[in-house]
Amino acid sequence: MPPHMNWPEFHASPPMAFTDVPGLQEGAVDDFEHSMGIEEFRKNAKDMVDWICDYYASNEKLPVRSEVEPGYLRPLLPKAAPQHPENFGSIMQDVQSKIMPGITHWQSPNFFAYFPSNSSFPAMLGDMLSTALSTVGFCWIGSPATTELETIVMDWLGKLLCLPTSFLAFDEQGKRGLGGGVIQGSASESTLVSVLAARARVAPEHASKLVAYSSDQSHSSIKKACMVAGIPYVRIIPASAEDDYALDPAALREAIEEDLRNEDLIPFYVCATIGTTSSCAVDPIAEIGRITRHYNLWLHVDAAYAGVTSMLPEYRHYFNGLELVDSFITNGHKWLLTNFDCSCMWVQNAEPLKTALSLTPAYLRAKGNSLDYKDWQVPLGRRFRALKLWFVMRSYGTDNIKKFLRHHVQLGQLFVSLIQTDARLEIMAPPRWGLICFAIRGPNNDATNEATAELLERINKSGRAFLVHTELSGRFVARMAIGGSLTQERHVRATWQLISECTTEVLAARAKFHKGV
Amino acid sequence: MPPHMNWPEFHASPPMAFTDVPGLQEGAVDDFEHSMGIEEFRKNAKDMVDWICDYYASNEKLPVRSEVEPGYLRPLLPKAAPQHPENFGSIMQDVQSKIMPGITHWQSPNFFAYFPSNSSFPAMLGDMLSTALSTVGFCWIGSPATTELETIVMDWLGKLLCLPTSFLAFDEQGKRGLGGGVIQGSASESTLVSVLAARARVAPEHASKLVAYSSDQSHSSIKKACMVAGIPYVRIIPASAEDDYALDPAALREAIEEDLRNEDLIPFYVCATIGTTSSCAVDPIAEIGRITRHYNLWLHVDAAYAGVTSMLPEYRHYFNGLELVDSFITNGHKWLLTNFDCSCMWVQNAEPLKTALSLTPAYLRAKGNSLDYKDWQVPLGRRFRALKLWFVMRSYGTDNIKKFLRHHVQLGQLFVSLIQTDARLEIMAPPRWGLICFAIRGPNNDATNEATAELLERINKSGRAFLVHTELSGRFVARMAIGGSLTQERHVRATWQLISECTTEVLAARAKFHKGV
Repeated sequence: MPPHMNWPEFHASPPMAFTDVPGLQEGAVDDFEHSMGIEEFRKNAKDMVDWICDYYASNEKLPVRSEVEPGYLRPLLPKAAPQHPENFGSIMQDVQSKIMPGITHWQSPNFFAYFPSNSSFPAMLGDMLSTALSTVGFCWIGSPATTELETIVMDWLGKLLCLPTSFLAFDEQGKRGLGGGVIQGSASESTLVSVLAARARVAPEHASKLVAYSSDQSHSSIKKACMVAGIPYVRIIPASAEDDYALDPAALREAIEEDLRNEDLIPFYVCATIGTTSSCAVDPIAEIGRITRHYNLWLHVDAAYAGVTSMLPEYRHYFNGLELVDSFITNGHKWLLTNFDCSCMWVQNAEPLKTALSLTPAYLRAKGNSLDYKDWQVPLGRRFRALKLWFVMRSYGTDNIKKFLRHHVQLGQLFVSLIQTDARLEIMAPPRWGLICFAIRGPNNDATNEATAELLERINKSGRAFLVHTELSGRFVARMAIGGSLTQERHVRATWQLISECTTEVLAARAKFHKGV
Repeated sequence: MPPHMNWPEFHASPPMAFTDVPGLQEGAVDDFEHSMGIEEFRKNAKDMVDWICDYYASNEKLPVRSEVEPGYLRPLLPKAAPQHPENFGSIMQDVQSKIMPGITHWQSPNFFAYFPSNSSFPAMLGDMLSTALSTVGFCWIGSPATTELETIVMDWLGKLLCLPTSFLAFDEQGKRGLGGGVIQGSASESTLVSVLAARARVAPEHASKLVAYSSDQSHSSIKKACMVAGIPYVRIIPASAEDDYALDPAALREAIEEDLRNEDLIPFYVCATIGTTSSCAVDPIAEIGRITRHYNLWLHVDAAYAGVTSMLPEYRHYFNGLELVDSFITNGHKWLLTNFDCSCMWVQNAEPLKTALSLTPAYLRAKGNSLDYKDWQVPLGRRFRALKLWFVMRSYGTDNIKKFLRHHVQLGQLFVSLIQTDARLEIMAPPRWGLICFAIRGPNNDATNEATAELLERINKSGRAFLVHTELSGRFVARMAIGGSLTQERHVRATWQLISECTTEVLAARAKFHKGV
């Protein structure tokens, strides 16, 4: 019997007849009572605040990477939801004893994996408020402040990042422009939306010919966006170590020219990156922008991690050419103290976005010519995400935010200098911002790569730090990504100590193995 | 000068040389200090808890729909982010005086617009925890508990909804199946993912021939999903008042047969709805499922609002045929006490999802054969959303959750009986669950429609309730959507009073107008 056949038909009672109502006497419908009243919530929520404070006071002592085995949790929990209410205390006991061992601590100051995913107290306060109000601001009237604060805060951040005025919703004179900012859930969604906007500028009958371009160092989300959008061709241009893993504009131009000679192909979109995931490579935006303007392609710039440093004069030159860019993103939830999710996206012209994403049935029609962010994103519903970003910018102030970024850059420099004291290790790409790629020194062969992989696993297994790897020119490379909200000098120094000790152990074990066998 | 030209090139300082480091002396890198320390956060967060309690104790007195004008907020806020830190108190003052007037109160017990978007105290506690941990659980090792609790809680909910076992991740014997649940951000994303999975079962060279089907009562997100995915054809089948606005299986079969005779078309996907947005119509799932199985089309069931009532025996018959369905969604954030975002999606076989959505670069590779939810969704990053659903199910217990749903159904019945006492109004579609469509009685013409529109605006302008409209067979119809977490009998009765009074006013004004002019 196929699995879909073993399910009985239900011939149960028809829906209650609506004529047979409980009666019109007041009180005939019993009030449902919530399991947790306001006073109980007040107490529980304050206990939760204390729990959170304890967590932040002590999370550097916890093993950073969870060491549970896949499937650890299922045997620890009941097979079905309880029939009767359970109290907050017993849920929190389970959080402590069953959930916490399975948490990888992204907020630990010793978390150096992936990219940082910042949290901060002001952002958490903004998020509490957002959750409490629980507005669903897909259209302006659905909750005007939800939409308007987002536009304003994205202008604030755009100005702080010195974005060209055309990316702002309003110029200095208060005139509404064609562009503006929107908070997406993730960089992947921002990238997808940029692909859709780019496609919307091309006649639909050409959909099967479209070609997108990026370097092989771009984030995987560009491929995924094209898969989702059904873009048939993504041309991945190899970036080499000689170019510090940046996209070579000449190679891009050549690829476009080649595709233009093929009548079955239509180049339409380029994704460039400022701060690639593997090594924080920086594609030359101005040169690429001149190419995309020349061929009339959409240029999207993914600066998910490093984009926030556009506010620092010493990094502004990386952002030269932004005036030639159609869409630009940086993630507030990576390195701007704003808890996930907060992917900040700007466009110079929102019309292609709306062409790609707007359809307005009667029950969603807006008041006047107000802005409906549903037409700027894939989902309909959306949280009041602007609150947390607003709380962060006001609570820190721009001076402090700059100091925060520079602090991590300095920690990165410190880490580089520490690595350089150790001849057993080498730095594998130009260190940028807080990202340093390193490996055990040696020829590019399996033995060296295995040694670095062993080193990484030994570090992570210790629980004292968590790093992940990448591949650069075929080398297995460890990535030290500095930028956690709580990371300070002593954490970087301690992690360096750990790396040094683990290197000794790995090399000793390998020497013994080679001698012994 | 075109706008993109007025932006200067930056020739600023090159990035700091990494050899020129601050030195290796400990303490050489100054520690950055956060603007808000743990003790300050503890105090502020507890103040926020008190604010939230006050809000929930009093939000029924606030005007439900915000009455601000578009653009109200910009003149009230500075043009740029502050340079120096501002304290929590001054931010909260602005929340109170500037943000709150622009809030439409989705959590007011007098909010009857769109569909409900439930909030509850246990969900808010779970969300606080999720924000504090701020894990980004895109892959299993990124935070094992984040992934595993989601699988478990989605099995809990799937069982409670009596879904066929094939939708669960694990059967009663603990055997892993092909299917399972995932929490998406919104129903729109769930629908998009279902379209992508369906497309993944068809050879890519047929992409330009694909046809999706739904009734004209399906949610707009199906059209948007097809726009995003680049699906060329969406056949919208009209549903009539005679069928209570349900999709007619015979019409569906006919449309598919017709398209199959055209060699340029390939039917691949049907979206059916249990509880349409306009009138809570119910498409006949079993009949549609037999058709989609026959023609090998993907069947997606969107039960965003009403799907939770699959746990009530009196509604189970609407869900007959789920064993023939490929993907099923209901939103925890609509009518299941779980704050946005929490769109619960199940599939019988996750393989097509992964085909559609998985690509795994080196830095994201998973440990063993564990589950990586990034392969089940469009974004890479994801919040720990399962916590809030887990908190809700445990804090309420299944008995109470059922009582919660039935309470709103009874309130709906009460509202129907109240409307029926008033000959000036008529019910425009079979009322189902908490949704009642009504209008001012009259012929289907502009005058009647205008009267109903005036009635609705008068209700909303009062601030005492918020309802939105839809169109049914060309009629302008008011929708009373009952299901707010805090809505009780007295709110429904008061809103009925308001409707009655406003009806009197509208009819009097119109009579006067017609007499006078």
